[in-house]
Amino acid sequence: MNFRSDNEHGASPEILEALARANAGTSHAYGEDPLTARVESRLKEIFETDLVVFPVATGTSANSLALSVIAPPFGAIYCHSEAHIAVDECGGPEFYTGGAKLVGLAGEHGKLSAEDVEAALAGAHKGVVHHVQPAAISLTQATEAGTVYRAGEVDAIAAAARRHGLRLHMDGARFANALVSLGASPAEITWRAGVDILSFGASKNGALAAEAVVVFDRALAAELGFRRKRAGHLFSKMRFLSAQLDAYLADGLWLRNARHANAMARRLAEGLARIPGARLAHPAEANEVFVDLPEHAIRGLAADGFEFYRWLGENRTLLRLVTAFDTKESDVAAFIASAERHAARANERVA
Amino acid sequence: MNFRSDNEHGASPEILEALARANAGTSHAYGEDPLTARVESRLKEIFETDLVVFPVATGTSANSLALSVIAPPFGAIYCHSEAHIAVDECGGPEFYTGGAKLVGLAGEHGKLSAEDVEAALAGAHKGVVHHVQPAAISLTQATEAGTVYRAGEVDAIAAAARRHGLRLHMDGARFANALVSLGASPAEITWRAGVDILSFGASKNGALAAEAVVVFDRALAAELGFRRKRAGHLFSKMRFLSAQLDAYLADGLWLRNARHANAMARRLAEGLARIPGARLAHPAEANEVFVDLPEHAIRGLAADGFEFYRWLGENRTLLRLVTAFDTKESDVAAFIASAERHAARANERVA
Amino acid sequence: MNFRSDNEHGASPEILEALARANAGTSHAYGEDPLTARVESRLKEIFETDLVVFPVATGTSANSLALSVIAPPFGAIYCHSEAHIAVDECGGPEFYTGGAKLVGLAGEHGKLSAEDVEAALAGAHKGVVHHVQPAAISLTQATEAGTVYRAGEVDAIAAAARRHGLRLHMDGARFANALVSLGASPAEITWRAGVDILSFGASKNGALAAEAVVVFDRALAAELGFRRKRAGHLFSKMRFLSAQLDAYLADGLWLRNARHANAMARRLAEGLARIPGARLAHPAEANEVFVDLPEHAIRGLAADGFEFYRWLGENRTLLRLVTAFDTKESDVAAFIASAERHAARANERVA
Amino acid sequence: MNFRSDNEHGASPEILEALARANAGTSHAYGEDPLTARVESRLKEIFETDLVVFPVATGTSANSLALSVIAPPFGAIYCHSEAHIAVDECGGPEFYTGGAKLVGLAGEHGKLSAEDVEAALAGAHKGVVHHVQPAAISLTQATEAGTVYRAGEVDAIAAAARRHGLRLHMDGARFANALVSLGASPAEITWRAGVDILSFGASKNGALAAEAVVVFDRALAAELGFRRKRAGHLFSKMRFLSAQLDAYLADGLWLRNARHANAMARRLAEGLARIPGARLAHPAEANEVFVDLPEHAIRGLAADGFEFYRWLGENRTLLRLVTAFDTKESDVAAFIASAERHAARANERVA
Repeated sequence: MNFRSDNEHGASPEILEALARANAGTSHAYGEDPLTARVESRLKEIFETDLVVFPVATGTSANSLALSVIAPPFGAIYCHSEAHIAVDECGGPEFYTGGAKLVGLAGEHGKLSAEDVEAALAGAHKGVVHHVQPAAISLTQATEAGTVYRAGEVDAIAAAARRHGLRLHMDGARFANALVSLGASPAEITWRAGVDILSFGASKNGALAAEAVVVFDRALAAELGFRRKRAGHLFSKMRFLSAQLDAYLADGLWLRNARHANAMARRLAEGLARIPGARLAHPAEANEVFVDLPEHAIRGLAADGFEFYRWLGENRTLLRLVTAFDTKESDVAAFIASAERHAARANERVA
Repeated sequence: MNFRSDNEHGASPEILEALARANAGTSHAYGEDPLTARVESRLKEIFETDLVVFPVATGTSANSLALSVIAPPFGAIYCHSEAHIAVDECGGPEFYTGGAKLVGLAGEHGKLSAEDVEAALAGAHKGVVHHVQPAAISLTQATEAGTVYRAGEVDAIAAAARRHGLRLHMDGARFANALVSLGASPAEITWRAGVDILSFGASKNGALAAEAVVVFDRALAAELGFRRKRAGHLFSKMRFLSAQLDAYLADGLWLRNARHANAMARRLAEGLARIPGARLAHPAEANEVFVDLPEHAIRGLAADGFEFYRWLGENRTLLRLVTAFDTKESDVAAFIASAERHAARANERVA
Repeated sequence: MNFRSDNEHGASPEILEALARANAGTSHAYGEDPLTARVESRLKEIFETDLVVFPVATGTSANSLALSVIAPPFGAIYCHSEAHIAVDECGGPEFYTGGAKLVGLAGEHGKLSAEDVEAALAGAHKGVVHHVQPAAISLTQATEAGTVYRAGEVDAIAAAARRHGLRLHMDGARFANALVSLGASPAEITWRAGVDILSFGASKNGALAAEAVVVFDRALAAELGFRRKRAGHLFSKMRFLSAQLDAYLADGLWLRNARHANAMARRLAEGLARIPGARLAHPAEANEVFVDLPEHAIRGLAADGFEFYRWLGENRTLLRLVTAFDTKESDVAAFIASAERHAARANERVA
Repeated sequence: MNFRSDNEHGASPEILEALARANAGTSHAYGEDPLTARVESRLKEIFETDLVVFPVATGTSANSLALSVIAPPFGAIYCHSEAHIAVDECGGPEFYTGGAKLVGLAGEHGKLSAEDVEAALAGAHKGVVHHVQPAAISLTQATEAGTVYRAGEVDAIAAAARRHGLRLHMDGARFANALVSLGASPAEITWRAGVDILSFGASKNGALAAEAVVVFDRALAAELGFRRKRAGHLFSKMRFLSAQLDAYLADGLWLRNARHANAMARRLAEGLARIPGARLAHPAEANEVFVDLPEHAIRGLAADGFEFYRWLGENRTLLRLVTAFDTKESDVAAFIASAERHAARANERVA
């Protein structure tokens, strides 16, 4: 019963079946195939706008490529201090941009505020050669804390970006989870709110390995193809990447998967919140639950065979629990029951 | 009837089935799964030595990552002037190495000779700060001309590399095709002949998108994991990459696929060689045929629905024909028949 | 009367004369000249050890080159959050290292403590591919806050570095000022305390434009010559760079210059400290004084023709005052008198 | 008697005197000084156009910085196969551009022809993601073979550049020598002929270490300041760099120096050309003479104390002889006499 990561879950059957279908016959390589074209069509429809799509296989490559076309080597990219791009990609953005600097800003529940961004930009020495130059802001949607940005929040940050001449990137590794959580339209929380370029994730939500850099501003697309190729992220048999995205987007699979994962997280959060001694660190707005539990309960859960991460270190009691498109309700119920039982025992002891 | 590239063929059914099998349950991410471990075991057995394996999804990433651990930013990498790394990767090796220089050497039939390598190294200003420093040699096996290096040839080049303190990389995008062509053992044409690091290809030979950097010298492996991650080539759901490699290596599928592709190329080459006015540019030792045909025959073949590349430009008559694991004998026969028919007509005209 | 920066002062007459002397005749280029050799000899003697010297013209190049041989592209470099390398070099270290990450740590009076370094390293995820890898620590001597590290403090940080397998760099842009402040020997606060590589500054202390990367660990020197050349920092007419360093080191000029600058800073600090409403932000241990003054006094000083920087922004009252090898005692006295006069008037008003 | 390189000669007395004058008082750092402004004014006047100037200290940095603003990381830079940027800068342009590829083209007497450039561009796969993209052409003026491009030749190459959307860089390490050789105006052989950006050299022609990136297209200047700073080429005490350029340009010193050097080269070439068994490899149009001499004469010259380079290797008989602003007529005469004497003796032997 794995609550470690949505990365550790498999793929939706529909997506595997799409791979099998895509295998028929030969097909032009490197994206000159009909499936890739269809993915672009689908995304145009879903986002209600013209756009350019670059399928890739990993979130780190999507983020790093996106950032490489909006930040020069001497640029600064503003993000939350716990953003995946800043702490979990082994310097991917620095590699792809040729040495841009990630500037981490604090912010409650994993979110940047427009005020903090504005304050950081005001002190950024724009135009002074001694300092890296503000180039881009990157938001994670859903955030690394399992929360989501409202359209208005994105818009306010985008306004600050525009005022200072910066571009806005969205790391949408869990974009679907954020979307269904908000009940918003894809356009509303992206380009209409000022997002220039989006890492559109599918791997965590039922694909095998598929993401897409979605470029809303065509001017940014010119370089991206070359950068993707030289980074080794242009697949020869692209149809197998596009087939995943195609099936993901068809018939609302991506939304169904995300809704299920979110529902499981909500149920988990509600169940755990009722346990004496438990404390939710962040609102569970997408498919992640951050909960502080008594040490004894944590050990009990592990002994019962549940897998999860202690979030801040091996001797800490904050857990990150991630649900996925195929997390079973019975596993969630079992987790809550186990936590309740072990926490109660711990409380007895203390008493 | 596609003879454009082995990249345009699909995947072996066995490999698709392996994906479906790999989809059961959850699995630790980022390579901490049993399938990835099994791929490493299989490769150790196949290569009869200790080694470290880094699965990736594309040949460009395998090559660029491999070169990034054997050439410093101020290094020179010697390769054939038509090597894929030099002309078809949009500067991937330069990106990954931080600006190393690819030095292209001439060589008949796509192959470097030990003499030419030795001569180039002798004039390379080793130790002089004004010049990039010889760091590595890269051989493509099978070559971009569809030929193969004999073990002795690899060994002679490796000896030159060692004499001058260089590392030896092998771009094995079509390694299986070379291997079965030579009837050699994998060890014989790699580490025993002096290869330090190998890009082991599977995508062109029946995988969806799977390659592996195979590191024979453990010292080179230390950096590779970090470089792969920051380049965005560490898959979260690695099991789906490893499942492809696992099925590829199981029960000799990789060798069967390569044998078939090679046999089709040989048949094609033999058939075309008999056509008056046709000329094979290189011996067809693997799964590629380079043939010069009369312009009229080329147009006729295209009109008959055959797909292929003119190799040196749109107004040139050298064709590259590539066969794959699933190329049909009937397609090969049809191609030869069409070429014969159109060439004959062309000859009539001339006469 | 310029207290803005030691960078805004000229050159010692002895150094200009050395340039004229160095101009006689022809001389082999790129460092193959006797003056460059003599600089290395002098530094070996001064540091009482074997070492390798790479003269360059700027502090940013010295720092960036030094860091590029001790941190890989996926490395983390720990430094004070206000370190020059982190905030004033427009991403120079990121450029030269190929994208390493500078990790800024807090610390009183511009100094890192061994404890904070140790804590940061303990949480650095060593060996985990998702995170940049701790590679180096960089200390500034004297610090950006005008304070100095004692030999014991350097040693404690070096011990933490060694424990975790990191290299230790010292940014000695104001090395002479630190040295004479401490009354230590050069060896004592560098290699004997565990420094692997030093940016040895001269420009701020009387040279026109001359620094030297001093490499205590010969293993680090192998790459440096190539990296310096490709960065464009190998001077053809090197004798003119070396002549500056030679004269700087001859007859203790560097120490005399630094002693004077430090004495002027001390006098300035003492004079200002006595003014009601003034507050020294840091001990003035080298040639910089950080003093908070009443706004009215600051305006009065500016009106009297004194030049200086407001340190934290145009509407802030913390001044940085820098003295140099040729700062006049009378200018210092005049500054104090002006500050006193204006501060008194300000106090009258308040009263 | 040094004919090895103009780099091995010293500085013009006028330039050293300018340094002494520039040393008076304090001056704002990093180029905010009046001397730097004056250099820009002078160059605007000399080039009869608006332009932006970035003083640096070395030719490699000038070239690499210039190229970094006209070629993206995935760009191709076309130059002569013997261009300094391609063979003598240890990969500087690759470093600064983030991995662009230098494409060396053949060409008689060190010069590219418009036809060859056009042919190379025609086959460059513009817009195809597998290949680096043509971005810039770089001409060396005077060339590495001691020849010069006529305005019409530059113009023809610039026309090819424009047709294909490329930028044109001129490496003017010996710009003054080319200029006086041609008797052209600076404008005529640069921006009027289509040059976008120029490395304007002074070091080889009498400065200590001073070059300037001269940007004719202001759009290219925006990034250059940041790139110069992060590369460590922004001098704090910039006045000492600008003072050199100022004196170099004042009163036609740069032209006088170049005229003398060229005259000495011409005399040398004429004298050597008359020697039986000698052969000039290239016309001596600037301040370099490439002459093939009998081995015995070469040894005799060396024995007589003359210093020079054998150009193609230690066992080859092609010499490069470089004259400078202060090469003495008597040294030239002595060289010719020595060569004559030794050649005659050699001829006797042969006879």
